[in-house]
Amino acid sequence: MPMNIYDNEEFFRSYVKLREGLNYNDLLETPAMLSLIDDIRGKEILDIGCGFGKTDRTFIELGARRVRGMDISEKMIEKAKAENMAEGIEYSVMPAGRLQDIDGLYDIVYSSLCFHYIEDFGKLISDIHSKLRPGGMLLFSQEHPITTADYEGGFSEDSRRYTFSSYQREGTRVSEWFVDGVVTYHRTFSTIITEIVRRGFRIDTVLEPKPSESAIRMLPRIEREYEKPSFLIVKSYKN
Amino acid sequence: MPMNIYDNEEFFRSYVKLREGLNYNDLLETPAMLSLIDDIRGKEILDIGCGFGKTDRTFIELGARRVRGMDISEKMIEKAKAENMAEGIEYSVMPAGRLQDIDGLYDIVYSSLCFHYIEDFGKLISDIHSKLRPGGMLLFSQEHPITTADYEGGFSEDSRRYTFSSYQREGTRVSEWFVDGVVTYHRTFSTIITEIVRRGFRIDTVLEPKPSESAIRMLPRIEREYEKPSFLIVKSYKN
Repeated sequence: MPMNIYDNEEFFRSYVKLREGLNYNDLLETPAMLSLIDDIRGKEILDIGCGFGKTDRTFIELGARRVRGMDISEKMIEKAKAENMAEGIEYSVMPAGRLQDIDGLYDIVYSSLCFHYIEDFGKLISDIHSKLRPGGMLLFSQEHPITTADYEGGFSEDSRRYTFSSYQREGTRVSEWFVDGVVTYHRTFSTIITEIVRRGFRIDTVLEPKPSESAIRMLPRIEREYEKPSFLIVKSYKN
Repeated sequence: MPMNIYDNEEFFRSYVKLREGLNYNDLLETPAMLSLIDDIRGKEILDIGCGFGKTDRTFIELGARRVRGMDISEKMIEKAKAENMAEGIEYSVMPAGRLQDIDGLYDIVYSSLCFHYIEDFGKLISDIHSKLRPGGMLLFSQEHPITTADYEGGFSEDSRRYTFSSYQREGTRVSEWFVDGVVTYHRTFSTIITEIVRRGFRIDTVLEPKPSESAIRMLPRIEREYEKPSFLIVKSYKN
């Protein structure tokens, strides 16, 4: 059973609240992701783990021809359909593990903060490869491997130092995020990069986004990203 | 003035002693590096920061046609010439910054634990690119970015957890390693990988080597590599 914490009532309420306030996604991760898309005009985009669909509507506004947003969570897709529908967008409730059921080919596969929930990373990348046109782009973000290594680690009280362990022990991690028992999968940096290459992609850019000065003014604690990054972003092209 | 701590008398004595005993290089880094060389027979190899030249002699024994070892340290090259000379090997005292003075082209550029001493990483990679034949391989190891981020960090007393900071602050680090004032340069994963791509290479493999069971039996404290890796290895090919 793939992880679908987002349909838990309590989790969903807390998550919606998080995303309504100033948050790391809007201040750090999404701008970094969007900065890596060369030219979106006329493109067909598949968004894996699309959530509320906010970025999918942005894609259409920036000139994408067609966007397909998929998410395992019914609640997310419901909210996406209610709030971020536009001509050219199609939303479906579907886990990443069922990518092979999607028809058609895409120019861009985009995925924001979803891959650390996926157990079989190699299969995921191969499935994505089969859904991309030749030369197509895979752009994804995930929790940074230093973060996924050890959710029991964390910042010192003054936010100046970060402590962790178990970086080389890949596999399941269970943590508490709004609710107990959120399951993610830790993979090292080397596994992530090497799997992408082995499954038929050419690495273009790796980015560990840093907060801007204005982001720090708006949300001062985001400055601790300078000590330890929260996100890893990889841009690659299908060979 | 490029870093050349290895010609400091006290440092050199301590370093020789370290390398004579059981050490991370012989148990972890060198085997991992050698495992990534596809076929060495008939190849011409340039070794940047060759040190004692032990690996260069191994290259010749494994069938390399020609090996050029360069190192900034006179003491290292003296020891290499005395202990690891073989037909087909040439050793020179030369800093990595003077790569453009080397004539000829190579099939493989190899560099073990040297690049974290180099200030201008982009120039280094471009210089290497110009010394490789088309399709040639660049294989290097360096101190892991989590390590170079913060030499004031370190393991907890029980070696179970690792604390660091300043990952996103790239630049000079001054540490104590046998002697005071060893200067290295911290770069993030993303800078390392993205620069290699930008300078004309295709990333093939990224490896953060893990100690084998036999290595742990021989040197029990190397087990803490499971919490936090010491080395980053990158294999890439010239486009």
